Amino acid sequence: MASFTIPGFLAAAVTAGIKKKSSRLDLGLIHAPAGAAAAGLFTTNRVAAPAVVLGRERLRAGRISAVLVNSGNANTAVGPRGRLDTLLCTAAVARRLGLPPQQVLMCSTGVIGEPLPVHRVTDAIPDLVRALRPEGWRDFARAIMTTDTRTKLIARELRLGAIKVRILGAAKGSGMIHPRMATMLVYLLTDAAAPALLLRRLLREAAEDTFNALSVDGDTSTSDTVLLLASGQARNAPLRPGSAAARAFLQALKEISAELADLIVADGEGATRLFRVEVSGARTREQADRVARRIANSPLVKTAFHAADPNWGRILAAAGSAGVPLDPARLELGFADESSRRQVLVMKAGAPAPGYREKPAAAILRGKSFRVRLNLHQGRASRTITTCDFSADYVRINAEYRS
Amino acid sequence: MASFTIPGFLAAAVTAGIKKKSSRLDLGLIHAPAGAAAAGLFTTNRVAAPAVVLGRERLRAGRISAVLVNSGNANTAVGPRGRLDTLLCTAAVARRLGLPPQQVLMCSTGVIGEPLPVHRVTDAIPDLVRALRPEGWRDFARAIMTTDTRTKLIARELRLGAIKVRILGAAKGSGMIHPRMATMLVYLLTDAAAPALLLRRLLREAAEDTFNALSVDGDTSTSDTVLLLASGQARNAPLRPGSAAARAFLQALKEISAELADLIVADGEGATRLFRVEVSGARTREQADRVARRIANSPLVKTAFHAADPNWGRILAAAGSAGVPLDPARLELGFADESSRRQVLVMKAGAPAPGYREKPAAAILRGKSFRVRLNLHQGRASRTITTCDFSADYVRINAEYRS
Repeated sequence: MASFTIPGFLAAAVTAGIKKKSSRLDLGLIHAPAGAAAAGLFTTNRVAAPAVVLGRERLRAGRISAVLVNSGNANTAVGPRGRLDTLLCTAAVARRLGLPPQQVLMCSTGVIGEPLPVHRVTDAIPDLVRALRPEGWRDFARAIMTTDTRTKLIARELRLGAIKVRILGAAKGSGMIHPRMATMLVYLLTDAAAPALLLRRLLREAAEDTFNALSVDGDTSTSDTVLLLASGQARNAPLRPGSAAARAFLQALKEISAELADLIVADGEGATRLFRVEVSGARTREQADRVARRIANSPLVKTAFHAADPNWGRILAAAGSAGVPLDPARLELGFADESSRRQVLVMKAGAPAPGYREKPAAAILRGKSFRVRLNLHQGRASRTITTCDFSADYVRINAEYRS
Repeated sequence: MASFTIPGFLAAAVTAGIKKKSSRLDLGLIHAPAGAAAAGLFTTNRVAAPAVVLGRERLRAGRISAVLVNSGNANTAVGPRGRLDTLLCTAAVARRLGLPPQQVLMCSTGVIGEPLPVHRVTDAIPDLVRALRPEGWRDFARAIMTTDTRTKLIARELRLGAIKVRILGAAKGSGMIHPRMATMLVYLLTDAAAPALLLRRLLREAAEDTFNALSVDGDTSTSDTVLLLASGQARNAPLRPGSAAARAFLQALKEISAELADLIVADGEGATRLFRVEVSGARTREQADRVARRIANSPLVKTAFHAADPNWGRILAAAGSAGVPLDPARLELGFADESSRRQVLVMKAGAPAPGYREKPAAAILRGKSFRVRLNLHQGRASRTITTCDFSADYVRINAEYRS
């Protein structure tokens, strides 16, 4: 495990008082003193945060020097003031750091529909900038949490020829997690040199099977954001599309993304288990995706798994209502533990598999993580969605979120 | 309130021992000794119960004399034996009642993926037939319950000219409730005379804003069935399409359907409140429907409402992720109590409404039922979906369903 520093970047966090009744860190800052090539993915929710809208605009130039992040308030659905407040906050950061405002992004996460206490943010910026340091990532990861119970911070090193390159990832996300072509808040930093256009492509590819393939509760956030910033301070020859170095970098990016995605799901609100819904034998990837998401988001499947109950009829009921044509008589269903060492065939050709017994199935479901495998036997496309169980704690957390 | 008898029909229920560890009624029978014109709506789930498949086939003739219903086992996803067992059970009823098998329907509800204990069913049929009587409806309504906490039985009288006509409705449904072009188990009986083709049209129309506009948990059952049987014993001139009598009958049918639909939602697993999501100002009815269902099925909305928390940002987040183009700056949102006497405007033109306060909003949400009104302001289409809150009890009920 590499240390939590990354050449070319500083980080910091302070308590600005945005979160109610709390002295928790709630304002974080990433700074690339020499700038960074940048790419981003954002929520597809039509009710997008003003910070998301601004982020899309500013990322077009492909170069970013600072990212301000507040938790406790999403600054969303507050009318035109939402954008003005975002502009104000990023301008204050730009002034303090001596940057053009176009190189500052902002992310806001928390309650929707309440005005951002903008002066608390701007008042805190001098302290925040003073606190910037190479080792500020643990504080930063703490400041972006909402209902998360754990910080999510990962570092990875890889070699590109003779040159050692680092990737650092920080994420938050626990509820309202059902990213579609975008995700929660994720910050991926690297000291590798790479053009923004290539970063965009690599990020999209890395997200496809990681951040875009997970769900906690089927609710898509208005603030989902994944950023990839590259400082270039590793002084590698800038990555080129299709090169072996780009492939190696992508592989490392995928691994760190997958690990962060799993951390988010495992820390899903009230979650006690993580499971992967692997749908195969579909006609198209899109159909496999729909069936897998339908199962992953079924409250009946999620509550059964909470009790480690192999009530697989609910899986079939969910699959059958995904709006995808399928032939019940061909369905094949199984459970496996995370490593696939233990496997149980539940159903074959639409009927309970010969010799199927509940006990070994339940034993697999009692694990902290396991796999659900549904083969539709009508094609070659597949898709895996990672999600978590549904506990009474989920209800408690969300019924009491603001009280 | 009319009495629970309906000319031309008998009903009965017995304890056949299909439900585990239970001496509860679990086998019901409806008998129309002189036959009945019949129409039905069934689940669109691709994994449909064999009883549903058989029901679709046998309803083509438009004439039915008996309906056998078991709870405790859905007889679904058990391979080819599912259909054979359904044929066996309906044949046993037909033999005992002296009917052609084609005039007997079956409905099965309960656990999916376990073989039906078919001999318990067939062994119980002689007792079941002996128990048939005009007043058997309370027992019947009890026999079709699964996780329901209340029987759902309603009767209504209307006049068609000089002739008094009755409609009786019995329903069950509490979980896995998200009917699409079909529903849970609902039996609508009338002594009116009407051709099956017209019954089909009337039933479809009555279901559109009632059984097809409700949701408990977003999970679509494999057994959803609504049947409308007409004995004709009221001796009215058979209903004709477009006639005043048909309109009056449809009106009564809609009312009884709406009442049963509300009973189902109010008895949703773990539910403590019923709410209606009224989406208006949409470009098309289909878009209004998608937005309304997305809100109605959002776990975050449902858990907030469980706590009577007007956390309306979650409503916007759900609306924005329904896959329907919408302009956040036009959105208008309000809460109202069931009678619309108390109303609170929450948001106008995409921002909190001037003078909006949380207290009166929370007071409305504390009621047993209320309305959520979202105007998209981009067209004239609308749709209302009725649903319920999401409680820790929902999780408890479904985590412990089989244990």
